[in-house]
Amino acid sequence: MIIDVHGHYTTAPAALGAWRDLQIAGLKDPSKAPRAADLRISDDELRESIETNQLRKMKERGSDLTIFSPRASFMAHHIGDFETSSAWAAVCNELCYRVAQLFPAHFVPAAMLPQSPGVAPATCIPELTRCVEQYGNVGINLNPDPSGGHWTSPPLTDRSWYPLYEKMVEYDIPAMIHVSTSCNACFHTTGAHYLNADTTAFMQCLTGDLFKDFPTLKFLIPHGGGAVPYHWGRFRGLAQELKKPLLDEHLLNNIFFDTCVYHQPGIDLLTRVIPVKNILFASEMIGAVRGIDPTTGHHYDDTRRYIEACAHLSDEERFLVYEGNARRVFGRLHRQLQAKGL
Amino acid sequence: MIIDVHGHYTTAPAALGAWRDLQIAGLKDPSKAPRAADLRISDDELRESIETNQLRKMKERGSDLTIFSPRASFMAHHIGDFETSSAWAAVCNELCYRVAQLFPAHFVPAAMLPQSPGVAPATCIPELTRCVEQYGNVGINLNPDPSGGHWTSPPLTDRSWYPLYEKMVEYDIPAMIHVSTSCNACFHTTGAHYLNADTTAFMQCLTGDLFKDFPTLKFLIPHGGGAVPYHWGRFRGLAQELKKPLLDEHLLNNIFFDTCVYHQPGIDLLTRVIPVKNILFASEMIGAVRGIDPTTGHHYDDTRRYIEACAHLSDEERFLVYEGNARRVFGRLHRQLQAKGL
Repeated sequence: MIIDVHGHYTTAPAALGAWRDLQIAGLKDPSKAPRAADLRISDDELRESIETNQLRKMKERGSDLTIFSPRASFMAHHIGDFETSSAWAAVCNELCYRVAQLFPAHFVPAAMLPQSPGVAPATCIPELTRCVEQYGNVGINLNPDPSGGHWTSPPLTDRSWYPLYEKMVEYDIPAMIHVSTSCNACFHTTGAHYLNADTTAFMQCLTGDLFKDFPTLKFLIPHGGGAVPYHWGRFRGLAQELKKPLLDEHLLNNIFFDTCVYHQPGIDLLTRVIPVKNILFASEMIGAVRGIDPTTGHHYDDTRRYIEACAHLSDEERFLVYEGNARRVFGRLHRQLQAKGL
Repeated sequence: MIIDVHGHYTTAPAALGAWRDLQIAGLKDPSKAPRAADLRISDDELRESIETNQLRKMKERGSDLTIFSPRASFMAHHIGDFETSSAWAAVCNELCYRVAQLFPAHFVPAAMLPQSPGVAPATCIPELTRCVEQYGNVGINLNPDPSGGHWTSPPLTDRSWYPLYEKMVEYDIPAMIHVSTSCNACFHTTGAHYLNADTTAFMQCLTGDLFKDFPTLKFLIPHGGGAVPYHWGRFRGLAQELKKPLLDEHLLNNIFFDTCVYHQPGIDLLTRVIPVKNILFASEMIGAVRGIDPTTGHHYDDTRRYIEACAHLSDEERFLVYEGNARRVFGRLHRQLQAKGL
């Protein structure tokens, strides 16, 4: 089985965007604010949006199951306040749940949280609980910068995040550390802010001792870990300067990287530098980079091709990247699959 | 000749730091503010700080000439105002000039600028002019985020930067795009902020058309380009989505990367993915990562070893990385060397 641990519902029917536009308009003129019930998207519309997009490409590319969360760039936690994010997260998470209900063999949901700048992360626990207990979510996306590129929240090692971590550990769900749209003109969303956040989150964990407090907490750092594997020597050296344990022991029982790196040399480096047990297959399809690479004739984000082409990986290692590691990191997914005899 | 294009005066005598401490104290209590003339460091002290540190290691490692600028993390443009930065830059640039005078065969100066958050970059031109015309500087360090991790300045493509670029083009000097200390708790200075800034600057250039306006402007992106070479497929794909030309044409006549990547797999990727004509040898020694890599027994920042070990590089390509490209990018350096018969 090939499990893609990083998919977003980037192709939701236009009614979702229209609802969000009204919600944003309602921040200035409350008479325009929509109720959750005003969003009407039929099962047929959901089915079509998936069958003609993600599911079609999954079949073409040979992946079986996608961990599916709301569109990352649309989370936009910087808009409005906690109530705004709360209503928006509820709507988006419900759609991913419905997709998973319609295609139970191919999609399993992960939740966005109703984060808001300056608001305690603990306020996200009710939505997290609802998504896990009622919707069967197997993971969450945690935004380390709800301000959208101004980085006004404390680092992930700060105790204000701990209530969320306690809940994650209790439920055995990992967090993908994923920012949203940048509203800082310095940072292009998918070309700078996403990668910077990956690097930043890793370094926050490196300087701290978070995993001493939460030995079973799991973070998935997307986009191949930002700059981290490319600069692995730098990070090993910085850990040494800071008198931290070796990274294997200090971070690699808790931090994992996905394979959203869109060329062969990048995947080669990732799979040579980072232990295979810490690498999870992903494509972020359909996402930021949708084109065909003229140097290969294939889609940039068809990451399975790169994994297949890594001659240094054994079949057993490839199994770990495709399936085994995902079952270990996403414990609830593994148990859901087992319950189905998979 | 082996030219290291990225060295900072990290080992300046303690009197420099003491002067800066007084300058900072003077922001609250002007009676404490020192005059430039209060800083007294003898030639012998300068000589010793270099001979026992950078020059010793250059000889051990076999590099000949270092482009030498004030300590990056100490620029701290976020402290005080333009007058503060102006006095501090003058003091620091003078020290690098004196080092170059004392060791003319081994050090050539590059300037820090007296940037200050919210202050027009054009205000840096007098210091730039002084450093080029009186001190023989061959390049500058340009901080894309003088706020120190809050990213409150406009992107490098903004017209407010243009007066500086005009001067750079007139003098034929490149800018190394280098941030300073982070005062944002989210960003570790050397483990996150530096790398993020590299990626951010590249993406700012990718989304803009700066080099149409300045076809001969040259930016050196340090630390191996942050996350850029590792994600080269992503950046090629994003350029394609944005209907930009191929990166070779769009950016690679103007953007160059250094080799401050502290392990062999990173340097292997850099030199395979980025055209050799765009790669300049550097170590940032003595800098952020000073230890010995237990997996190799050599210093992490002894980057020459990695270049030597790249079996895919020809002697001619290695010459370009070590010397040829530096002479092309740092035109004034080339002419200074020619004048000496080198």
